[in-house]
Amino acid sequence: MIKITLPDGSIKEFESGATPMDVAMSISHGLARNVISATFNGTKVETKTPLEEDGTLTLHTFSDKEGKEAFWHSSSHVMAQAVEELFPGSKLTIGPAIDNGFYYDIDFGDHQISESDIPAIEKKMIEIARGKHEFEMRSVSKADALSKYKEEGNQYKVELIENLTDGEITFCDHATFTDLCRGGHIPNTGIIKAVKVMSIAGAYWRGDENNTQLTRLYGISFPKQKDLKEYLELLEEAKKRDHRKLGKELQLFTFSQRVGQGLPLWLPKGAALRERLENFLKAAQKKAGYEMVMTPHIGSKELYETSGHYAKYGEDSFQPITTPSEDEEFLLKPMNCPHHCEIYKSIQWSYRDLPKRFAEFGTVYRYEQSGELHGLTRVRGFTQDDAHIFCTPDQLDDEFMKVIDLVLYVFGSLGFENFTAQVSIRDPKKPEKYIGDVENWEKAENAILRAAKAKGLDFVVEEGEAAFYGPKLDFMVKDALGRSWQLGTIQVDYNLPERFDLSYKGADNESHRPVMIHRAPFGSMERFIAILLEHTGGNFPLWLMPEQCIVLSLSEKYENYAKQIAETLENHEIRTLTDNRAETMGKKIREAEMNKLPYMLIVGEQEEKDGTVSVRKHGGDDLGTMTAAQFASMIKEEVASSIKTFEV
Amino acid sequence: MIKITLPDGSIKEFESGATPMDVAMSISHGLARNVISATFNGTKVETKTPLEEDGTLTLHTFSDKEGKEAFWHSSSHVMAQAVEELFPGSKLTIGPAIDNGFYYDIDFGDHQISESDIPAIEKKMIEIARGKHEFEMRSVSKADALSKYKEEGNQYKVELIENLTDGEITFCDHATFTDLCRGGHIPNTGIIKAVKVMSIAGAYWRGDENNTQLTRLYGISFPKQKDLKEYLELLEEAKKRDHRKLGKELQLFTFSQRVGQGLPLWLPKGAALRERLENFLKAAQKKAGYEMVMTPHIGSKELYETSGHYAKYGEDSFQPITTPSEDEEFLLKPMNCPHHCEIYKSIQWSYRDLPKRFAEFGTVYRYEQSGELHGLTRVRGFTQDDAHIFCTPDQLDDEFMKVIDLVLYVFGSLGFENFTAQVSIRDPKKPEKYIGDVENWEKAENAILRAAKAKGLDFVVEEGEAAFYGPKLDFMVKDALGRSWQLGTIQVDYNLPERFDLSYKGADNESHRPVMIHRAPFGSMERFIAILLEHTGGNFPLWLMPEQCIVLSLSEKYENYAKQIAETLENHEIRTLTDNRAETMGKKIREAEMNKLPYMLIVGEQEEKDGTVSVRKHGGDDLGTMTAAQFASMIKEEVASSIKTFEV
Repeated sequence: MIKITLPDGSIKEFESGATPMDVAMSISHGLARNVISATFNGTKVETKTPLEEDGTLTLHTFSDKEGKEAFWHSSSHVMAQAVEELFPGSKLTIGPAIDNGFYYDIDFGDHQISESDIPAIEKKMIEIARGKHEFEMRSVSKADALSKYKEEGNQYKVELIENLTDGEITFCDHATFTDLCRGGHIPNTGIIKAVKVMSIAGAYWRGDENNTQLTRLYGISFPKQKDLKEYLELLEEAKKRDHRKLGKELQLFTFSQRVGQGLPLWLPKGAALRERLENFLKAAQKKAGYEMVMTPHIGSKELYETSGHYAKYGEDSFQPITTPSEDEEFLLKPMNCPHHCEIYKSIQWSYRDLPKRFAEFGTVYRYEQSGELHGLTRVRGFTQDDAHIFCTPDQLDDEFMKVIDLVLYVFGSLGFENFTAQVSIRDPKKPEKYIGDVENWEKAENAILRAAKAKGLDFVVEEGEAAFYGPKLDFMVKDALGRSWQLGTIQVDYNLPERFDLSYKGADNESHRPVMIHRAPFGSMERFIAILLEHTGGNFPLWLMPEQCIVLSLSEKYENYAKQIAETLENHEIRTLTDNRAETMGKKIREAEMNKLPYMLIVGEQEEKDGTVSVRKHGGDDLGTMTAAQFASMIKEEVASSIKTFEV
Repeated sequence: MIKITLPDGSIKEFESGATPMDVAMSISHGLARNVISATFNGTKVETKTPLEEDGTLTLHTFSDKEGKEAFWHSSSHVMAQAVEELFPGSKLTIGPAIDNGFYYDIDFGDHQISESDIPAIEKKMIEIARGKHEFEMRSVSKADALSKYKEEGNQYKVELIENLTDGEITFCDHATFTDLCRGGHIPNTGIIKAVKVMSIAGAYWRGDENNTQLTRLYGISFPKQKDLKEYLELLEEAKKRDHRKLGKELQLFTFSQRVGQGLPLWLPKGAALRERLENFLKAAQKKAGYEMVMTPHIGSKELYETSGHYAKYGEDSFQPITTPSEDEEFLLKPMNCPHHCEIYKSIQWSYRDLPKRFAEFGTVYRYEQSGELHGLTRVRGFTQDDAHIFCTPDQLDDEFMKVIDLVLYVFGSLGFENFTAQVSIRDPKKPEKYIGDVENWEKAENAILRAAKAKGLDFVVEEGEAAFYGPKLDFMVKDALGRSWQLGTIQVDYNLPERFDLSYKGADNESHRPVMIHRAPFGSMERFIAILLEHTGGNFPLWLMPEQCIVLSLSEKYENYAKQIAETLENHEIRTLTDNRAETMGKKIREAEMNKLPYMLIVGEQEEKDGTVSVRKHGGDDLGTMTAAQFASMIKEEVASSIKTFEV
């Protein structure tokens, strides 16, 4: 008998050789129907793998990350079989599961595969799936494995097998198909109910551009047709919400090859949006006792040698700036902390002055390879909503918790209700990645853990994810499409105060070392706005919208009345457009909808006579007629209810 | 007989050989008493120079620039004579008049002159002056001139004379003293009534550090003792108001060698002050139809090749930034215009969209030699209150005049009532200094002249002072100490639109070239704040003050009441400090005065009982007791009356 511990802590006894499916059946038939893979003692197993020792077992369904991986890994076998049947002579190479589906890199030989081949592949995959073939793993000798692929003339698999130096070599069979495989499958092909070959791309064998170019087929599959449909709709929606597309349509920002890649230029509407976000945070920060400072965008190389940035990143960064006639070197500022340390250092502080909280919307520059750049989410210049808190060790916990409050206020105000936290600590096995002594690292890590617990955050701890100078608490938010994004960060740092020899005079009249907190609730203004664009699809909260309403005149006759309404609203500080063009109302409304105008105020004969406007909400709701003043109060109420003041 | 035209246009006849003094006498004895030099047909002459042809004559007194120059030039002869008498064997080199006084570079040989020698020099100068010696010019042959100085062993004068290639060589004698001199003296030494040797400095012969080091004596002199006293008081006041000193005392900004020379770090109070100034201008700009944009602080080298900046300034600037793995070069942004051109270019505009007015508080970086750096007035990184207006040629005049209105509004709101304007046009003799064709330059220059005249500005035209891409209108303000500073600038530019191939679609549906206006009312935030600091001595207008009042409690007993008052005032958005230290009221008031706090609110037993505060104004005025609410209204009124809204 073996003892199986389940995730809820309960322990069940089974005969040795019982499978995960047996365990599932012993719990409920419903569970058994959905179980598609399992993890036993930390190792991926299949539902029919015999369990032969005591251990911890987790059963996976398609809703788990691990379940999906088995599902998509298995689906990639099915796609490979379909390709082999449809395009005999194709040589398979590798075909892993990925975050969203799977791919297979294939050498199609002389056959030029194209989009038009996709329907046949999908059809064949479904045909195979319906056969409900089981996946059977078997061990083979290296010689047998090599001989199979040499016979087929598949030099890729031969190379893979030749490079396998330890462990047994396994093949997986299903139906008439065999592949070199480490295992981790679903029970049978029958549960694959929906498949989609998403795209065809090129890929070099082993990712090396000196090797043969292969064809990569990306696919995805689901246990229900409905799931596929939803997934494709989500993709469609994500495409519509792509911040690069929306940013252009809404004239928020642009890029110019002549200015340089990865260097956004903010157009008036985008700059105004960004300023509103900055003012929102400034107001909260003021309440929380922060003080704004301003520092230059360059610093001497010595500054970054002092901070340790140069040693860590110097070679991979924008290179130093020299001067025509003096022996000086400057670097584009990659971080604001060294500058803030020098500001702190310019005044002799007493313990009574602390904490000092220096905030700056500081634009920093970091080199990224041009291939890595992506809209506003991966840029070469971005503005951090940065602040550094210099406090006594006694104040650290309290200050850290206050920062958590501020971050949660920011997320809540912007409609990110769904978030998790990650405590990123050092990898104790790689001390060379970090600066500073172990004792301080432990103090810092413990402070973060205490604060995260005290605030009741839902957090995970990740080793090796700390910054080089200290551990951090990162926040991940889920957007409206269910995608996760890393946003705000809070970091504890005992190291820079050492390196910059920062001090304050204690109550004992002696000199003491302050502790530093680095924090940025948005993270980067650029990235945050990109995420907010994709989260809202451009329908920002009303207080952020570049324009809050548009007055549409039914014909030129009402132009003056429309202007008068717009003026009244502008006096109420409501951002108002007018459209007095000689176009049909239908066209004007369509354009206003496309431009995401939250409210459309239609004015014609009746409205002018009554001194009212007919209000239409973005999306189509008719709110009836009201006076401009009534509309203004409604807008003000909506703004006030969506954005609360930060309370300390 | 000769005809002499006077500045008022009147023409008088004199016998040939009449002197400027004769002309003065013919007008009035009062004038004759004050005349000290003259300009005849554009050439400096002395009051006794015989006039032998028709011409235009301007008589100068000490209140003219030219009069001062003659006065100080003559004084430098007197100082040289005093030195020769006191330190025989000293070798004179050159001794010109400068903006404020004069200097003489002297080789004192073995004698180490020091501050302690100054009283003797001044005493000797006054002794000589009282002799009422006349300055007599005489021609000498080169041989005679050389022989005098060779005899004296003065290799400096020998070198000077040897380098004189054309024109006659003249000596000037007065009393027992003779100097090589081109002329331009006052009637006699007797009108020099007050002298001061200001400082002793080192200076290399001919400014070349490979040459002998000489001793430079700086001096100043006046026709009245009272003038000297006032001048020294002004200097003392200027020293007190030195923005570098005040900036440190008021904790507005700091510099750090580790960040880099010439790169200011704004401390919280300074950053807040700057933000208030920026918000003030933003509000006016919003009314005037400007839109804010944001651009990065670097741009590709190609961007500045396109604009012409690289060819013009590239070698003398911060050098290009390279990347670790790609063939790209970036430059620190020296100007915002190329970025704004690229923003304009990102959208296809119609004539109906123009003018577009893009504004940005854009931080730019320009290399200055470290020896040239000075506080905030000469830095390596500074923020321009920049904007670029893109308009049709038809809109140019109107737009330019609107910018003048905005600039005058800014000056008026900040207490600079006293200003002049300068129209800086190209030097037609040096076309190589400018880009673009002559026709466009003429159009641009004429537009500026038309606007300056239409606005009734008091302006001068300066050839050769234009920017390389276009002419400009610069404003000079006079500060409280009577010193002139160049502030705002407005420039017309036909060139960048060409270089960036900017266009708009005209009413004719054809593509047209817009015109650009560059403008910055403050010029640079750093420089403007420096000037404002020196102009106000740190007593900024109330709306700008980092703190507007301080509550001083008579003893710890009233701490709670003081806090309550401060809270009430903060709720009225009045920036309030409290001082509850156990110090005497005298000390608290002295410190508040030193920190330029505009209002001090004293609270003790009586005030707490009555629910009032005793208000003392900075400088000492007692405003009596009032409630916190009354004080708040008073402050709000003061702010409202000092800063008017910009009306378009």
